[in-house]
Amino acid sequence: MAGTKTIAILSPGEMGHAIGRVLANRGRRVITSLAGRSERTAGLARAAGIDDVGSLDRIVREADVILSVLSSASAPVVASEVADRLAARDRPLTYVDCNALAPRTVREIGAIVSRAGGHVVDVGIVGGPPTLERGPRFYASGPYLEEFLAFRDDGFDVRPLGAEIGQASGFKMCYGALTKGLSALGAELLLAAARLDLLDPLLTEFQDSQPAVLAWLERSVPAMPPKSRRWVSEMEEIAATLGQLGLSSGYHLAASNLYWRIGETPLGHERPESRDTSRTLRVVIEELTRSLP
Amino acid sequence: MAGTKTIAILSPGEMGHAIGRVLANRGRRVITSLAGRSERTAGLARAAGIDDVGSLDRIVREADVILSVLSSASAPVVASEVADRLAARDRPLTYVDCNALAPRTVREIGAIVSRAGGHVVDVGIVGGPPTLERGPRFYASGPYLEEFLAFRDDGFDVRPLGAEIGQASGFKMCYGALTKGLSALGAELLLAAARLDLLDPLLTEFQDSQPAVLAWLERSVPAMPPKSRRWVSEMEEIAATLGQLGLSSGYHLAASNLYWRIGETPLGHERPESRDTSRTLRVVIEELTRSLP
Repeated sequence: MAGTKTIAILSPGEMGHAIGRVLANRGRRVITSLAGRSERTAGLARAAGIDDVGSLDRIVREADVILSVLSSASAPVVASEVADRLAARDRPLTYVDCNALAPRTVREIGAIVSRAGGHVVDVGIVGGPPTLERGPRFYASGPYLEEFLAFRDDGFDVRPLGAEIGQASGFKMCYGALTKGLSALGAELLLAAARLDLLDPLLTEFQDSQPAVLAWLERSVPAMPPKSRRWVSEMEEIAATLGQLGLSSGYHLAASNLYWRIGETPLGHERPESRDTSRTLRVVIEELTRSLP
Repeated sequence: MAGTKTIAILSPGEMGHAIGRVLANRGRRVITSLAGRSERTAGLARAAGIDDVGSLDRIVREADVILSVLSSASAPVVASEVADRLAARDRPLTYVDCNALAPRTVREIGAIVSRAGGHVVDVGIVGGPPTLERGPRFYASGPYLEEFLAFRDDGFDVRPLGAEIGQASGFKMCYGALTKGLSALGAELLLAAARLDLLDPLLTEFQDSQPAVLAWLERSVPAMPPKSRRWVSEMEEIAATLGQLGLSSGYHLAASNLYWRIGETPLGHERPESRDTSRTLRVVIEELTRSLP
């Protein structure tokens, strides 16, 4: 990444700190602000080799690239805060929006940050947080795409999707529409079966006639509750994406509602990394049946 | 099926005529009424060895068992018409409701037919129409379950789900919620990708990271358009089932809407058996993208 010295991560959560860790390991200076962040996030950031510069002001002054890796709901707010501080800069800043957002939402963010002088790149991350060995795919689009392609030098799998802001986010929306939509649909109908006292025969029938989809649900649904609060606003963005294309927003508004409700249960409050991975699909559905109102 | 002489099929469509064909082949007398039916349905019924007795009056007089195999929307109407004619009978009739209905809907049907003296069995058929070699699963429940268990003598795979009307239908709802819900969800997001000009990269990404779910969609979505009109009311019943359990009806109301829209396209008007099976998922999505408003 010739010429790129300092990369800021907003914010170093589950995905963000893992990206920062890879970049720091490749010798980049990686910064963030831990003001107001939890002790856990601070710990993750320190362990990843990310420097705390203490404020967004300093981030906008010192960074060459900002990677925005947030919940869908906070992405527009943080983008505005960055834009407000860009006037004080004397050189360009690459602003990479990596959030799960509807194309229209990221185009609005792009307009705000571009007007303030930022070079905006739209990125949709597909796959889990990177490790030093392997990482997700970074689909990228926008007029400053080239500035993000440089991350390939650090081993990132960047896949260009053209010069238009919104395309990478649109891609991420369609992908998540299937994976997170199917997790929600599957959980919802298994909850229905449990309420009808039909969970066992239904799982047996799925095992016999739908083994591939059942295997998929067996992997995804037990891992979902601790992530489900984070997915509430992502589902709303997917619903908006489909609605803005003249298609149905109903599947993902329903998914958003389910993720919200599951997020309020005891399973929804576990830490992803500390959850009991021996819980089967059946056990998770039964626990949710007991704890959902 | 000791003592059972005559079985009526209402009506001998795709699933109904195939069931009738198996029963006729086993030596049962199978009857129906073709009054007002299409030439195609009449042809299917004749080829299956089903006798046309010409009216519902005669069916209710002559049948020992009625199998109701209809679209979800017509099931309650036909049940009432049967109930109206039951007073004239001097011996019990077994009324087997095989339709895709919400538990509450089939309980209403059960109440109407029972009050008129019918022995109601609730059946949910899981799988495609039977051939002489293999058939779907017939999940069955209700106080007269025993009378349907006799169909095992004719090689039917009958799976009991207890003495309560509604359980077999509830099972069918949960099963279809996954299979027909996932077909709709998958088609909807692929239509979104096509409208965003992202269909090719999305299919490539699914091939790499979600091969099992993609393979499932590759089998189910190209076969779906000619069946989709039939599924509109079935999706409404599934939506009602989830809603009545305090869960979300949104996924399947969205699916119902999509199936209705697809049913109006040229692909939706093909005959299931005459559709071009060489069409791939990609080609079907592109054709739907061109023909959907």
